[in-house]
Amino acid sequence: MYLILIYDVGEERVNRVHKICKKYLIWIQNSVFEGDITDSNFFKLSGELRKVMDKEKDSIITFQFESDRKFKKKILGVEKNSTSFEVW
Amino acid sequence: MYLILIYDVGEERVNRVHKICKKYLIWIQNSVFEGDITDSNFFKLSGELRKVMDKEKDSIITFQFESDRKFKKKILGVEKNSTSFEVW
Repeated sequence: MYLILIYDVGEERVNRVHKICKKYLIWIQNSVFEGDITDSNFFKLSGELRKVMDKEKDSIITFQFESDRKFKKKILGVEKNSTSFEVW
Repeated sequence: MYLILIYDVGEERVNRVHKICKKYLIWIQNSVFEGDITDSNFFKLSGELRKVMDKEKDSIITFQFESDRKFKKKILGVEKNSTSFEVW
């Protein structure tokens, strides 16, 4: 599947959450990751995140797609880190 | 179309960017918005954002879909503000 992951976690947990996401996905902006991921790796990723995050305070949202052909991605302003962007 | 918008802008511009996005979309987390939007409103939204943002420093990414049936959304942790979430 193709995944977009956006985290909103306490500052003291940002580094750990960022490192976990980086093992499975591509970092594209601030607290946003994306990339192809297998079901089993998605299971591993969510398990690792659960251990580190504070479930009372933090929030991690994922959007899952069949493939990266299911959406059009555009960027306005700076391209911080990209897979492939269209100019907006 | 259905839109996910994620902004990463300088602190001094966050309020203005947030207010503009709120006119057209639903706020779901920290710097993330989503919602149905017409082509003409998307054009207006991007025009308003262009005026406010610093194109050398800020970054706004959008993901466009035909509809919200093209993806599965899940949340881990706190539901900050939601349209409809599945428990992860």
